[in-house]
Amino acid sequence: MRTEINKLGEFGLIERIAANFPLQKKTSKKGIADDAAVIKIEEDKQLLVSTDMLVEGIHFDLSYTPLKHLGYKAVSVNVSDIAAMNGIPHQITVSLALSNRFSVEAVDEFYEGVKFACEDYGIDLVGGDTTSSPKGLVISITALGQASPKKIVYRNTAKKGDVLCVTGDLGAAFVGLQILEREKRVFIDAPEAQPKLDNLEHVMERQLKPKARMDIIYELEEHGILPTSMMDISDGLASEIHHICRQSNVGAMMYEKNIPIDEQTAVTAAEELKLSPLTCALNGGEDYELLFTIKQEDLQKIEKIVDVHLIGYIHEAEKGVKVVMNSEQLMDIKAQGWKHFEENE
Amino acid sequence: MRTEINKLGEFGLIERIAANFPLQKKTSKKGIADDAAVIKIEEDKQLLVSTDMLVEGIHFDLSYTPLKHLGYKAVSVNVSDIAAMNGIPHQITVSLALSNRFSVEAVDEFYEGVKFACEDYGIDLVGGDTTSSPKGLVISITALGQASPKKIVYRNTAKKGDVLCVTGDLGAAFVGLQILEREKRVFIDAPEAQPKLDNLEHVMERQLKPKARMDIIYELEEHGILPTSMMDISDGLASEIHHICRQSNVGAMMYEKNIPIDEQTAVTAAEELKLSPLTCALNGGEDYELLFTIKQEDLQKIEKIVDVHLIGYIHEAEKGVKVVMNSEQLMDIKAQGWKHFEENE
Repeated sequence: MRTEINKLGEFGLIERIAANFPLQKKTSKKGIADDAAVIKIEEDKQLLVSTDMLVEGIHFDLSYTPLKHLGYKAVSVNVSDIAAMNGIPHQITVSLALSNRFSVEAVDEFYEGVKFACEDYGIDLVGGDTTSSPKGLVISITALGQASPKKIVYRNTAKKGDVLCVTGDLGAAFVGLQILEREKRVFIDAPEAQPKLDNLEHVMERQLKPKARMDIIYELEEHGILPTSMMDISDGLASEIHHICRQSNVGAMMYEKNIPIDEQTAVTAAEELKLSPLTCALNGGEDYELLFTIKQEDLQKIEKIVDVHLIGYIHEAEKGVKVVMNSEQLMDIKAQGWKHFEENE
Repeated sequence: MRTEINKLGEFGLIERIAANFPLQKKTSKKGIADDAAVIKIEEDKQLLVSTDMLVEGIHFDLSYTPLKHLGYKAVSVNVSDIAAMNGIPHQITVSLALSNRFSVEAVDEFYEGVKFACEDYGIDLVGGDTTSSPKGLVISITALGQASPKKIVYRNTAKKGDVLCVTGDLGAAFVGLQILEREKRVFIDAPEAQPKLDNLEHVMERQLKPKARMDIIYELEEHGILPTSMMDISDGLASEIHHICRQSNVGAMMYEKNIPIDEQTAVTAAEELKLSPLTCALNGGEDYELLFTIKQEDLQKIEKIVDVHLIGYIHEAEKGVKVVMNSEQLMDIKAQGWKHFEENE
């Protein structure tokens, strides 16, 4: 079934969306239906605000991305930024620009994913804007979080001697993307071919439906650990470690053997894609894991958190940003990250 | 001169923008340069959040819209929503998706307009996202304001007997748009023709560089008036009065003779465009004036505010939403407003 959006109109569409998102949070005083949402800030807390834009043809390809997963991912990307400040997300706003290729049912599917994410992260949808676009889909999400000022963790406060930690595993989302792009090319050449996606659940899920690591934020709190600096890994470990080092005026030493790479990621990268798993972990994007530093005195505490890996330490800025390879060679880390502007030349 | 954006890269572009926007507000604790901005909420205040998306080819046409004005307008549109809640704007985030048609100089021009608006409204740019798009320009702005919960004014609280007020004058932005569209068609047919824009400053400015009515918000406070309901007029008076009436479960009676229409708007509509000035005032969009209701006991106070016009009163829902015409006929007001989704069929 396909219902044209102009059948509902902008106001009809907004009401349809709002009906599926009753407010749950005590801090959400007014959601959709007025000129602005009204949010209560908890006592002694400050507000955290982060915003991201996702553009069809640049950040996602709807030929292999289910809209429901895209809705989930768009929320995760923003919640991940609130997590990276050691904050608790409370609300999001979601704006869409849609071409007439998209039906009401497509919008419903997208918001189904948004709703799953809101439930997973315990947040409310409190506003947004829905408009048409001459071409494609553009998603703009703003996430609002709260944190006590003493517990907000910035990027520019890493200190010499701190231990460098990373959550989960790296490179999987990038490997997932390469597989999906490969299967898309195969499909274009031979539409009758079956996609080869066996034993690729992990890399697929990490690309299509990533989770923000709020679990780690709650665990850090539970174990009484306040990181000395933190950010999320959206552009790849190499790029992010440079942000922390440059802004904190320090350098870092990492160990290849400690950089967490899932076995499926490593095997798929090396055997199917002929890529170095380490390169995928360093320069692949969209991991949405957390990169943070802790004081040495917190080492015993951090070891109680299962999914945190100690990958190195912070040293003087003059010593640069380096990795000790398994071969015992020392490699300089260059910042790379996504260069969306170049892809579009 | 034309510098390609990929010469700077995303991070270079962000740094270039951030350098022009030092934080001014006491409530802006951290702006651009971390995963999220950090905002302090003033004592006993709540947060107001509003977001709008502007899409090239739908909301603006760069063949006659200077980017600097567009930057200013994009901020105004969002500040207007904060004003409509009786709040004070503090911060904005600005996200852009840009095709490679746009140079660094074009981005600079847009942000020059954003900066003028930030200065006019006393707000800080604290974040955003900049990415490429396969086609055209998409702007997504989120505005953050603050207000004491007792002073926040909603749409759903108008009461029978309240006096209906509107600021400024209506229909000018719509008339300005029609003139610009006409001149564009003339130019396409005969590129050597000079545009006829004499004596059109007011309608041009209202279309290209509208101002949010923060001045009225400050004056209401100064005169001790708390509106009983309020919203901004972005989709036309007819559409907005229906929002207030439906959400408040009331009706409204308005008087044609009291609906403020600037002389330039009226003359241009009638003589050049062969349009009814009243229709432009009722159904034209993008006025960004304020529509609000006050208690009758505030009538003496409101008359001290120069640019506020009393256009009617609130009555029972059963009596509908009507205008007493100058001809003494009674006309039903239908909600109309922008229907962007239909324009895109």
